[in-house]
Amino acid sequence: MNQEFASSLLEGAVTELSRLPGIGRKTALRLALHILRSDESAGVALGEAIIKMRRGVRYCRKCHNISETDLCPLCADPRRDSRTVCVVESVKDVMSFENTGQFNGVYHVLGGVIAPMEGIGPEMLEIESLVARVAAGDIDEVILALSATLEGETTNFYIFRRLAPYADVRITQLARGVSVGNEIEYTDEVTLGRSLLNRTLFSDSIKR
Amino acid sequence: MNQEFASSLLEGAVTELSRLPGIGRKTALRLALHILRSDESAGVALGEAIIKMRRGVRYCRKCHNISETDLCPLCADPRRDSRTVCVVESVKDVMSFENTGQFNGVYHVLGGVIAPMEGIGPEMLEIESLVARVAAGDIDEVILALSATLEGETTNFYIFRRLAPYADVRITQLARGVSVGNEIEYTDEVTLGRSLLNRTLFSDSIKR
Repeated sequence: MNQEFASSLLEGAVTELSRLPGIGRKTALRLALHILRSDESAGVALGEAIIKMRRGVRYCRKCHNISETDLCPLCADPRRDSRTVCVVESVKDVMSFENTGQFNGVYHVLGGVIAPMEGIGPEMLEIESLVARVAAGDIDEVILALSATLEGETTNFYIFRRLAPYADVRITQLARGVSVGNEIEYTDEVTLGRSLLNRTLFSDSIKR
Repeated sequence: MNQEFASSLLEGAVTELSRLPGIGRKTALRLALHILRSDESAGVALGEAIIKMRRGVRYCRKCHNISETDLCPLCADPRRDSRTVCVVESVKDVMSFENTGQFNGVYHVLGGVIAPMEGIGPEMLEIESLVARVAAGDIDEVILALSATLEGETTNFYIFRRLAPYADVRITQLARGVSVGNEIEYTDEVTLGRSLLNRTLFSDSIKR
């Protein structure tokens, strides 16, 4: 698309906006024109929020979650159980687990999963730092909470093998089963098989 | 959605991004995390481009197209025919007509169309300033180039009536007909009827 812009400033903003994922030049133009129609203060606030975030946000030294301080609020919170570590793929997954309200431990953000097809090997992820945390003797349980995909399972297995020398540490993974709200008819057979093998006491589910 | 953000800076950026049209909180979070993963310079460039655009872009005194100067580049260009004015709904439409490469006149951007259902009356559009341009005797032809919708046709008719006193000015509108590339089978009957009534000499189409 070759568009004639009446303003190089508009063109500049459209170019930058269209670098964002899922935002093409047409959408970027629509967004830019919306910003131009809104109050000047709103447009400036958007730009400043982006700059402040990009400059201010760092990663937690311990769990690699985003943070504005050396240690993230979760790692720094003395009320959380620092001996139970939930291993997740991304910062977004930390938010997802926090939203469940069911977890009071801490996290370890890998920054992805092993995906040879995309050229992502274990050395590109925060796996060594996880092994170091475990080796330091600070951890009782590692919960592998990666996606139930081939890449996720591969990464789970890789981490499991790397942590094998530390026999005192319990390594668990998320339960596999029928998603809450899903119908049996539309649940795939692998999931159904796992959900049968890992069946739980009905009385336990009533207590919760 | 109640999400726990590890960083108020991230939360601020997500809030601002989610004010954009078509961008919900989930998408805003995805965009913000993408910005965090990219180079710091890229994130800062995006923010600065938005601020610069919002602060620097004004509207052309004459045609109300966006501009960085008092007169937009199109109105200021002496090679363009300033006596032929194409009346469009938005800045985007100016770009669309410029992209055709078929127009060498100037524009008048209304800023919308009359839409009583949305509370948009003629006084909220740049119609008076169009009448003033015509009244000043600077214009030979006004091309009504609004959408072929009920609102567009209403606005066309309103402008036509307002310009009636200026009998020397030719008032034209875009041709209605079968869109190029469209099949007759899928063209609505109103369009087909208009395309029959306004049929053109085949020999004319060969010359172009």
